[in-house]
Amino acid sequence: MKYLLTIAYDGRRYHGYQIQKNGLSIQQMLCEAAEAVFHAPCAITGCSRTDSGVHALDFKATLEPSCDIRIPAEKVAVAMNTVLPEDISVLSSVVVPTEFHARYDVKWKEYRYQLYVSAARDPFLSGRAYHYPRALSIDAMAEAATHVVGTHDFRAFMASGSDVTDTVRTIYDCHLEVDKSRISIVVSGNGFLYNMVRILTGTLLSVAEGKRSPEDVPRIITSCDRTQAGITVPPHGLYLSRVSYDEWRESHG
Amino acid sequence: MKYLLTIAYDGRRYHGYQIQKNGLSIQQMLCEAAEAVFHAPCAITGCSRTDSGVHALDFKATLEPSCDIRIPAEKVAVAMNTVLPEDISVLSSVVVPTEFHARYDVKWKEYRYQLYVSAARDPFLSGRAYHYPRALSIDAMAEAATHVVGTHDFRAFMASGSDVTDTVRTIYDCHLEVDKSRISIVVSGNGFLYNMVRILTGTLLSVAEGKRSPEDVPRIITSCDRTQAGITVPPHGLYLSRVSYDEWRESHG
Repeated sequence: MKYLLTIAYDGRRYHGYQIQKNGLSIQQMLCEAAEAVFHAPCAITGCSRTDSGVHALDFKATLEPSCDIRIPAEKVAVAMNTVLPEDISVLSSVVVPTEFHARYDVKWKEYRYQLYVSAARDPFLSGRAYHYPRALSIDAMAEAATHVVGTHDFRAFMASGSDVTDTVRTIYDCHLEVDKSRISIVVSGNGFLYNMVRILTGTLLSVAEGKRSPEDVPRIITSCDRTQAGITVPPHGLYLSRVSYDEWRESHG
Repeated sequence: MKYLLTIAYDGRRYHGYQIQKNGLSIQQMLCEAAEAVFHAPCAITGCSRTDSGVHALDFKATLEPSCDIRIPAEKVAVAMNTVLPEDISVLSSVVVPTEFHARYDVKWKEYRYQLYVSAARDPFLSGRAYHYPRALSIDAMAEAATHVVGTHDFRAFMASGSDVTDTVRTIYDCHLEVDKSRISIVVSGNGFLYNMVRILTGTLLSVAEGKRSPEDVPRIITSCDRTQAGITVPPHGLYLSRVSYDEWRESHG
């Protein structure tokens, strides 16, 4: 039996998704909760890794118990939530074919980077959004975002330390959502390089500050040079907001 | 020199507003931050006490340094925020006359109790809103809320342990704000008894669940009997959302 779970989590307390020796991880919490529910070890396979402090609104993971106990899918979500801490929630659970793979079968993902502009910090956005104390040029940032869309070698937007060699990715959509002082950069693509969304956001922010122009973005992409792009903004504004196993269609954008 | 600070805080980590020996309080954090800014002890007087776990969006407190250092009002807010933890923020600061009193001069306050209805918990509302897993009758709750408005003896809505003897208060407004699955009960009045908003919310919830009818509310008020009212809902959904030193006018509602 293989279940596909949809999970939301506040990543603040965790050292990222992936299980590790030196720190609490989302995967570990899911494994422990699944074992408590099925009374047997369970394999948990995530759709992606998220870094320390990064959040998820629509994380997908498969759960395979190493036993024959069959629990109705909808009850798996309810039962796991009684065991999981309050900052992780299983939103739903369905049964999938055993050949389904939570990571390999992903067709596209959407990330959101949330920031807010105000003189004083908002205590309710602490650990949830990047506080920016000065005015930003939203129009310039929105124009810069359009230049990201397309199939490009995004090497300039990859943090060092990654062993990925094929750095070509397709970005289907990149736009801003503005609600009063809150700004979200929303980006969808068939894959993302290490720290790509955070470097992309840092670059768009430098455009919004007037340090770069929107037209610099295509030039930065073609340079394939990390030093041409902006800073890596902190993790706590980043949300994995959508994971899809269906092909991208324009209507998603 | 007397400053009036407007403060927002996430009360989750704190044992309430008031300074105490056995636990972290908002007042203590403000005192320490003020002393760091003015290099001298400062008197901090709050507009109200909030209980452990209760939040504030518009808390008011005066700050009086025990020294002659004069710092421009707007710089006091900025300087305190560099010292305060991320879950407390001074939104603004103004100079007030020395005879101004943060608590005695309050004319009315507004509280909001935030709850959300969904099968699964929302990890981003943990400690911020009361999770309610079953459908509620919003119309019945809204009707019940209207019966709270007016000048009444609210003894039935006061938790035991209070030494208050005059239990008559005027509620200027009580209404619901509904945004998808989120429901806020918003109540404004010239004063509130101990746990009054939380007991009021528990009573409105019991109406929304069909356990009481909206018309029961006036009967509960006149009973002056705590056992007739609903449960005391948990503190983490409660926000002190407005504190005013001006007389109530209808346009506020």
